[in-house]
Amino acid sequence: MSDQLDILRSLAKKTDSKIVMVVLDGVGGLPLTVNGDSELAAARTPNLDALAAQSQLGQVELVGAGITPGSGPGHLSLFGYDPLKYVVGRGALSAVGIGVKLEAGDVAVRGNFATLGADRVVQDRRAGRPSDAKNAEIVARLRAAMPDIDGTPVEIYTESEHRFVVVFRAAGGAALGANLSDVDPQATGVPPLSAQAHDAASARTAELVNTFVARAEAALAGEPQVNGVLFRGYSDVPHFPSFDDAYGLRAACIASYPMYKGLASLVGMDVLEVQGEEDALDGKVQALTQHWAEYDFFYFHVKKTDSTGEDGDFAAKVKKIELFDTLLPGLLALNPDVLAIVGDHSTPSKLATHSWHPVPLLIRSEYGRKDVATRYTEEEAQKGSLGLRRGTDVMPLLLANALKLNKYGA
Amino acid sequence: MSDQLDILRSLAKKTDSKIVMVVLDGVGGLPLTVNGDSELAAARTPNLDALAAQSQLGQVELVGAGITPGSGPGHLSLFGYDPLKYVVGRGALSAVGIGVKLEAGDVAVRGNFATLGADRVVQDRRAGRPSDAKNAEIVARLRAAMPDIDGTPVEIYTESEHRFVVVFRAAGGAALGANLSDVDPQATGVPPLSAQAHDAASARTAELVNTFVARAEAALAGEPQVNGVLFRGYSDVPHFPSFDDAYGLRAACIASYPMYKGLASLVGMDVLEVQGEEDALDGKVQALTQHWAEYDFFYFHVKKTDSTGEDGDFAAKVKKIELFDTLLPGLLALNPDVLAIVGDHSTPSKLATHSWHPVPLLIRSEYGRKDVATRYTEEEAQKGSLGLRRGTDVMPLLLANALKLNKYGA
Repeated sequence: MSDQLDILRSLAKKTDSKIVMVVLDGVGGLPLTVNGDSELAAARTPNLDALAAQSQLGQVELVGAGITPGSGPGHLSLFGYDPLKYVVGRGALSAVGIGVKLEAGDVAVRGNFATLGADRVVQDRRAGRPSDAKNAEIVARLRAAMPDIDGTPVEIYTESEHRFVVVFRAAGGAALGANLSDVDPQATGVPPLSAQAHDAASARTAELVNTFVARAEAALAGEPQVNGVLFRGYSDVPHFPSFDDAYGLRAACIASYPMYKGLASLVGMDVLEVQGEEDALDGKVQALTQHWAEYDFFYFHVKKTDSTGEDGDFAAKVKKIELFDTLLPGLLALNPDVLAIVGDHSTPSKLATHSWHPVPLLIRSEYGRKDVATRYTEEEAQKGSLGLRRGTDVMPLLLANALKLNKYGA
Repeated sequence: MSDQLDILRSLAKKTDSKIVMVVLDGVGGLPLTVNGDSELAAARTPNLDALAAQSQLGQVELVGAGITPGSGPGHLSLFGYDPLKYVVGRGALSAVGIGVKLEAGDVAVRGNFATLGADRVVQDRRAGRPSDAKNAEIVARLRAAMPDIDGTPVEIYTESEHRFVVVFRAAGGAALGANLSDVDPQATGVPPLSAQAHDAASARTAELVNTFVARAEAALAGEPQVNGVLFRGYSDVPHFPSFDDAYGLRAACIASYPMYKGLASLVGMDVLEVQGEEDALDGKVQALTQHWAEYDFFYFHVKKTDSTGEDGDFAAKVKKIELFDTLLPGLLALNPDVLAIVGDHSTPSKLATHSWHPVPLLIRSEYGRKDVATRYTEEEAQKGSLGLRRGTDVMPLLLANALKLNKYGA
């Protein structure tokens, strides 16, 4: 029983208590100058400050020291799934990221549009980085050319620039394997490779991939730049234990962006409908309130704290933190037994990208230790009673504070 | 060499230094109101305070984040044995808990008295929860009826209410296996199950169990309520490396309650006799003083800090902490090279049961870092130089501070 999920499964008990986990995406930041204020420290957050004064604080590293988490591993860690063990393949993550629901037996593949010259030689592995509009136009032509391949349903989705995703559907037939070689030669001056299956279950997938390549080249023959496709990264659908199975929790996801809904559905959460545009914070609180009675656990996602950090816009990130602060009374009005506020990684505007820095963790429950931390900031979190922990510690701490775990051993 | 015990074994060296590990059972607590004082913070402990000011402090989680340890896993962790790997079966823990010494090849089984109706159908799996006196009376009758089964010694022990323990002794014969199915059907309206062996070594055990069931029913035929027995949870004797083997330590246990003496004997400690009733703190200091020259390591157990927490009696727990404080000068007079004070888990009176919260750890030695923590309390321990650690870190830290470990690698 070395897997934490196995241990928690054996200890989990059902109770009426309710847990809300707020994930402020990329909330951890950095000061712009040595020992200056981070975005969280610079923000005026009276509601969050009042909450922090009554809560336990600490910090989490989602994957490990010095490791910058992607959104997938960051979230899986918060959900209690060791992100080094529970890996979502690149193809599946791309599909999940654009809101495609995968079923058992399907295979998702990441594709690049490429420019091919004479004798199919790869001239540009990114087809001159076409516009998103051009990408969409090409995808539409491929869809028209290939609704299926010899009866196997084929779905083609635009991502951005040269990137697209293909899903081959098992559709009730034999499960498709994802163990095959790449089409992308990862070099120019040579033709695309032919996909080779590495096991029997993947033989049909290799056929589908090679047929897709040939038909795409035929359909795009007149194009000067976007006239070839390269595949890299095949994934079958990850089978993760569900929140219900591992924790005995009826869990719901309240998020606006496809990637986060997809990750939540991979661990068996119900994805609730949220009204409103973009981050739709009011709609999220509304959804939480409406469905309060139906679930034991709510994952509540806030996106813009990350996006503004990615933009390198310190002031805008501060504003998004302050916006969340105005929302907090609506959450507290529901009086969850356990409320957590955390991030899936840091996104300091100074770096304008995800970073490895630990993320502040706040837990409010009846059963907290005396805690001297007074604000939800990186600096105060360092003084908190929860210490510096792995992200996978968050779920057991929330379950414990909700009195949903039996004792281990007599 | 992934097991910590293997690494420590390879580094251990014998020296004259002496280590005392005081385990204040369940000592970690909680404030009754947000950011109020815990039991440790509320207690007046001048001796402990003076010691803490000269010591290193930190916190330990015995099993893992959010996991509430039973006494067995909590102690094994403090003794340096990964509690997820070194598991004491329920039957063996029950036997150990009532002071039965198990030998290699024995099997210990947990039993319930039950009420059987017509056709041996189970009517009540707990026989109406008989009084402890009734339990003892029934056990005496079974002992008289079955001193052995076909030559195999059988020992029957009373626990409480409907619970009892049976030990089948190998007694120099072939080792008995513990891999067999339960007799308890875990349902009413059906008869008890017949135990089935899952391997060859357990075939004789299954025979013994099934014969026990039949003879017990014959012996109790006249009883209206307590007329059947159900078995669940068979354990052979865990074979853990001893303190001598793993650490090169001559180790002694100073405890009053059977469970703790049993756990100490499982890791090869000598169990010293303690004079006095109940927790017998004076007797414990006396035993320590008397045997000071004979051992390198003393495990010194204080029980009442847990019992009062389990009773939900904040004031009484404070008093038991203060009582230990009065005892401390007697320990310090022996001037151990390394003195540790720790708990095997928290038992906040607010929860009236074990909890998942970390336990304060104090280590006094010549070789401590500057440490700002000034009291042995949860809040001060959060600031301590030792940080937040797993319970299995305690033994290596004590050995290191006692200069009993060689360098790892050149």
